[in-house]
Amino acid sequence: MKPNRVEVLAIGDELLDGRVADTNTLRLADQLSFYNIRINQRTTITDDIDVIIREIKNIAERKTELCVVSGGLGPTSDDVTAEAFAALSGEELIRDEKTIQKIKQRLQQFNRPVTENQLKQADRPKSSELLINPVGSAVGFQLKYKNCLFVALPGVPKEFDSMVNDHILQPFKNLELRPLEKKVFRSFGLFEAQVDELLSDLPKKWPVIRLGYRAHFPEIAISLKASPEHSEQLQEAQKFVREKLGKSLFSETQGGFAETLIECLKSQSKTLSLAESCSGGLAGHLLTEVPGASEVFSVGLITYSNKSKTEILGVKEDTLKKFGAVSEETVTEMANQVRSMAKTDYGLAISGIAGPGGGTKEKPVGTIWIALSLEHEIITKKLELFFDREKNKIISAHSALDLLRRRLQY
Amino acid sequence: MKPNRVEVLAIGDELLDGRVADTNTLRLADQLSFYNIRINQRTTITDDIDVIIREIKNIAERKTELCVVSGGLGPTSDDVTAEAFAALSGEELIRDEKTIQKIKQRLQQFNRPVTENQLKQADRPKSSELLINPVGSAVGFQLKYKNCLFVALPGVPKEFDSMVNDHILQPFKNLELRPLEKKVFRSFGLFEAQVDELLSDLPKKWPVIRLGYRAHFPEIAISLKASPEHSEQLQEAQKFVREKLGKSLFSETQGGFAETLIECLKSQSKTLSLAESCSGGLAGHLLTEVPGASEVFSVGLITYSNKSKTEILGVKEDTLKKFGAVSEETVTEMANQVRSMAKTDYGLAISGIAGPGGGTKEKPVGTIWIALSLEHEIITKKLELFFDREKNKIISAHSALDLLRRRLQY
Repeated sequence: MKPNRVEVLAIGDELLDGRVADTNTLRLADQLSFYNIRINQRTTITDDIDVIIREIKNIAERKTELCVVSGGLGPTSDDVTAEAFAALSGEELIRDEKTIQKIKQRLQQFNRPVTENQLKQADRPKSSELLINPVGSAVGFQLKYKNCLFVALPGVPKEFDSMVNDHILQPFKNLELRPLEKKVFRSFGLFEAQVDELLSDLPKKWPVIRLGYRAHFPEIAISLKASPEHSEQLQEAQKFVREKLGKSLFSETQGGFAETLIECLKSQSKTLSLAESCSGGLAGHLLTEVPGASEVFSVGLITYSNKSKTEILGVKEDTLKKFGAVSEETVTEMANQVRSMAKTDYGLAISGIAGPGGGTKEKPVGTIWIALSLEHEIITKKLELFFDREKNKIISAHSALDLLRRRLQY
Repeated sequence: MKPNRVEVLAIGDELLDGRVADTNTLRLADQLSFYNIRINQRTTITDDIDVIIREIKNIAERKTELCVVSGGLGPTSDDVTAEAFAALSGEELIRDEKTIQKIKQRLQQFNRPVTENQLKQADRPKSSELLINPVGSAVGFQLKYKNCLFVALPGVPKEFDSMVNDHILQPFKNLELRPLEKKVFRSFGLFEAQVDELLSDLPKKWPVIRLGYRAHFPEIAISLKASPEHSEQLQEAQKFVREKLGKSLFSETQGGFAETLIECLKSQSKTLSLAESCSGGLAGHLLTEVPGASEVFSVGLITYSNKSKTEILGVKEDTLKKFGAVSEETVTEMANQVRSMAKTDYGLAISGIAGPGGGTKEKPVGTIWIALSLEHEIITKKLELFFDREKNKIISAHSALDLLRRRLQY
């Protein structure tokens, strides 16, 4: 049955002494939201058996129906979650034989001794139900206390997530609870406030759709969620989002920004070279994060000084003297030159003032010129940014790649 | 008086629905650790007045002496923290006149209307003490309930941190509680397990020193904390850390990895150029994150294809044919060539297989060659990495820069 009241009990000294943030609850909440289930409360406590028992009692008393317990099942002596549950109901711990074998095998593989603390990870209260951990050593377990089902899972995020899926979400699916459908759009080139403005009519037109934003600088992800019976509205709302975002929309899948550009280049059998000044290699780095980038990207020249712009890249000294390094004229020559040197279909160039120093009254910090050189055409754009050095570099590199991405994708 | 039992009450729907991680507790715990104060428990709840009141009562009942309350003081209708505290003690809310003026001014500045919800941010329970918010609109307040001092602060991290400092840490200082002294060392080139092994005698030799690690891939930060009366031991332990870490230690200040290299180059009036293959521009990006990098770094060539290695960089075709792109011979030519083309004192080169594709039996994924070219010398190094593409790139770029960093710094 779908639980009405859900809590999280997060156990571990490391969660309260400044070492580790509890991100398990965050991801669990996101997963549960697909079933329209909310977490009502989270209690974070230290590895103290009396405190654990006290809080289990409090949680059950609040008429909680499902409590996900995270942590305290590991191999160190302060891991006492299983002990606490056993003590609560006055029963003994039992050790899972299969898990013991698995632990022994793993330790032997790494030439490490089999200690009592390691074996302790196979322990669970006798009356509990064993929950298999497919990716780690410690077992999980679940048991009912009063009217609350406690599901105790290891706190290691990879293990926690995997077991949430197997032992919480899967049972929901078996109950034929149908998760919300979710669609994510990824955009570049708009601020969150602009996206919000563009999509402001969406909640009015389709009140059954849950609209969300998440900013991953410099991108904005837009998510739509709806229950399966509102599938048609979800389709309509998707169309609305596509129309409103226009060319800012670069992906409707998990595909990243650079990945999208590289896919476009590959599918059109085109190649790209880069001439970077203020972005300092970041555009090249972004492209080469994508496996297989070498099929379309062969050369990037980081010409950070004026001298290197003339000597390495062949920009005319006159151009630099007359217009400066941060100018439409210079960035045009940079893009044309790198395209011709690298013999690629496209050449992209970036030159600007990332800051904090180097600004003038005419060209303040944040002035960036970008250019895209094509066979019979040059496209240039001036950016006037107001971020710090790091973000100015990020926007510069992305904007240059985006000139080409928009051209190829739409 | 220094509190014995401390709790955090984190209030906000966004903390439980997957939108936001509560990082306030993490930073508060770190700050309190300087006073040897631990957070015993954290309770995270939604913006629900009854739940807030229930948990305030629970916290006070547990003989908590200080409870830091975070969130629920903002301008939206669901912010009810002040109301909850007022209802608890059956008193009214009062509105701070100075804060109202400040809120009105801010809104006028941005041409936004003055709404009741905005003004609500100046509200606090009548019997409470006002806590000034130097960086935002919402006031904080503190009041005693039973024997516990509740300090209610806005949840916005910048405001929370600033008010923790003013209203919690500063009073400790006024009580002449002296914070622990802290020293941070930053290292590159060792795994956390290796650092742990190297420093394993430290806690035995100086039990009064608290030793901590934090991994910021690919760096490891080592921290030592001690109370002021153990200042001498702290000095000894620092010497021990320096000896044990050797050249892996690159910074004892906030100075970053690339910053350290650039400072070394500047102070010795030397210049550097880069020839990157598998790192794809990342080394250049790292260097140019540092303001003023242009004084020492002028040229980076990303030669991602074999053809560009010969045509742009002048690596001999024979060398590539005979030894391949990922070889000591090729990386040596790359470093020599870029140094000579860019007319710099040093040339660094990186060529390897970042993965996931491109590996062979002789040269598996993770095989990376790096080289440092000096006037009469060449230093090369082979790395055999086992990370994913992203991390292989990060380690490659750092390791190349590190070849020069070690040479210049020690």
